[in-house]
Amino acid sequence: MAEQCSSGLIALDWGTSSLRAHLLDRRGGILDTRSRPWGIQHLPEGGFSAAYQGLVGDWLARAPGLPAIAAGMVGSRNGWQEVPYVDCPADAATIAAGLAICDTGVGPLHLVPGVLQAGDLPDVMRGEETQILGALAVDPALAADSRLVLPGTHSKWVTIRAGRIVGFSSFLTGELFAVLRDHSILGRPAHEAPSPAQLADATQAFHRGLEVARKSGAAGIAGRLFTTRSLFLTGGLAPQATLDYLSGLLIGEELRSGLATAGVDRGPGPPDRIAIIGAAALCSRYRDAFAVFGRSDVQSCGDTAAAGLWQVATVAGLVSNTTPSGSDHRV
Amino acid sequence: MAEQCSSGLIALDWGTSSLRAHLLDRRGGILDTRSRPWGIQHLPEGGFSAAYQGLVGDWLARAPGLPAIAAGMVGSRNGWQEVPYVDCPADAATIAAGLAICDTGVGPLHLVPGVLQAGDLPDVMRGEETQILGALAVDPALAADSRLVLPGTHSKWVTIRAGRIVGFSSFLTGELFAVLRDHSILGRPAHEAPSPAQLADATQAFHRGLEVARKSGAAGIAGRLFTTRSLFLTGGLAPQATLDYLSGLLIGEELRSGLATAGVDRGPGPPDRIAIIGAAALCSRYRDAFAVFGRSDVQSCGDTAAAGLWQVATVAGLVSNTTPSGSDHRV
Repeated sequence: MAEQCSSGLIALDWGTSSLRAHLLDRRGGILDTRSRPWGIQHLPEGGFSAAYQGLVGDWLARAPGLPAIAAGMVGSRNGWQEVPYVDCPADAATIAAGLAICDTGVGPLHLVPGVLQAGDLPDVMRGEETQILGALAVDPALAADSRLVLPGTHSKWVTIRAGRIVGFSSFLTGELFAVLRDHSILGRPAHEAPSPAQLADATQAFHRGLEVARKSGAAGIAGRLFTTRSLFLTGGLAPQATLDYLSGLLIGEELRSGLATAGVDRGPGPPDRIAIIGAAALCSRYRDAFAVFGRSDVQSCGDTAAAGLWQVATVAGLVSNTTPSGSDHRV
Repeated sequence: MAEQCSSGLIALDWGTSSLRAHLLDRRGGILDTRSRPWGIQHLPEGGFSAAYQGLVGDWLARAPGLPAIAAGMVGSRNGWQEVPYVDCPADAATIAAGLAICDTGVGPLHLVPGVLQAGDLPDVMRGEETQILGALAVDPALAADSRLVLPGTHSKWVTIRAGRIVGFSSFLTGELFAVLRDHSILGRPAHEAPSPAQLADATQAFHRGLEVARKSGAAGIAGRLFTTRSLFLTGGLAPQATLDYLSGLLIGEELRSGLATAGVDRGPGPPDRIAIIGAAALCSRYRDAFAVFGRSDVQSCGDTAAAGLWQVATVAGLVSNTTPSGSDHRV
């Protein structure tokens, strides 16, 4: 945390299921953070405006005219105001140039655009571009040439070259896990299990799923997913451990596929430098998984949303970054 | 249909979601067929016994002592009576030797066992083993060396050598499609679409999904599933066509993965002979898909459940097969 000094920016990370607000000082250090379950699909009465004023109204009252910026699904078609995507390749300058201004009733809120990869197989991100810019600001060594992995409902694998997002691919891993757990035959044993998994069993089952995915080779897990069921039926997997095994299979398939694609993209040469961006627990789970795939060198950047919002605001001239200091942003 | 002659066997195909009964003559020809939505999870009041007597009671009354046999989930843990799996490799003799007898209250019903592939990655089938025996009886050329594909909720890819089931793998394709359609972000546009897809659009979208899966190569579709969403968002796919595209991706991944595994199993040499077993519409969809993968030579066996039940009953000595004739079983 930076030393106390007067406020510089209100920085919002506003996604589908949650809203998080940071009050940043004039050097980008975090003074305060607040969270609400007010994602764009779970707004309180009064909608976006009520959520915004409810969460940051007192900050604005104490510092009238404080600039405010938000990234994430708040700028999507179903958000507060749709912000057109900027095209790939994209960097801090093109993203800052794409900011839209939303009239909140209590001052302007700058909305960060998502990034579009056009082409035969288009892909889109909203919110991750800001976390990526944060990671590049915090660790400039990543900017030259790296692959950033942002695990989640729709994980992103992002190729960075010379400070720009040059391409990316979304993996449905988190959503696949949730729908299979809640709505498929694979999730049933765990629902009916008498007690939760012990930590050791859970870790073992997760690693077992990862290994099955890794060993599936070019065939992938399409013909292996059902082993979550057949191992349970034949007594090879306790009902309490089935979901960790399934999680291992799905995260393993993301890594198997993502690493195979990385190989195709690059041809011969040293392997990509890989870094993971996200909440600590999820980063840790993915680091474990990368180690099973022979990549113990993968680093965690943690949560870089606040750093990214500061970076975009700085490049856009909303704030003047007098003493840039990456370490302030680490949380 | 065989010429009319007196009844020889009651043959039931009793799965999770439906119950189908055939009255077969003394040569295995189909005299009559009845269907009810009385799968083991959707039984009428009175349960298994009421379903059985309601569907075939009059056949039994007219021909007391008529042998009866059933295959499918009726023999599972949640069925009428659990029948232990027989081990792989399995053929008509080992499967017939594993028959269990269920006392229905109106005479014995022979229940066909499923097949277990033991090992580190076990797999199971119940019902498909009977369809497979039917296909091998109808087309003995498949018995020597072939790969049989049974599309469905949990598709099976089965390796046949010298008349035996030597190995198989389940693909969750049908269930994955259903849960993604009904519970994921990928299914949402179709639910909200103003009108259903036109046939030409649907076929085109299905083929497009197949091509994306085929071209995904060793990476597979893990990083491509989300294109169902991003193509829709960017106007590249009409909402009405999204589910056919998704179906193409998922069936394409089954084929990509299944064919890759076939290659691994066999080493160099001529490609496997492949045949599809199942309902006509699904067989046709899979034949289309195989053609996209360069396998226009794949044949359809149609629905071979009745032929398989006849085959097991014959080998078990429940009926005496006086004039075996494969063509009687084609439906």
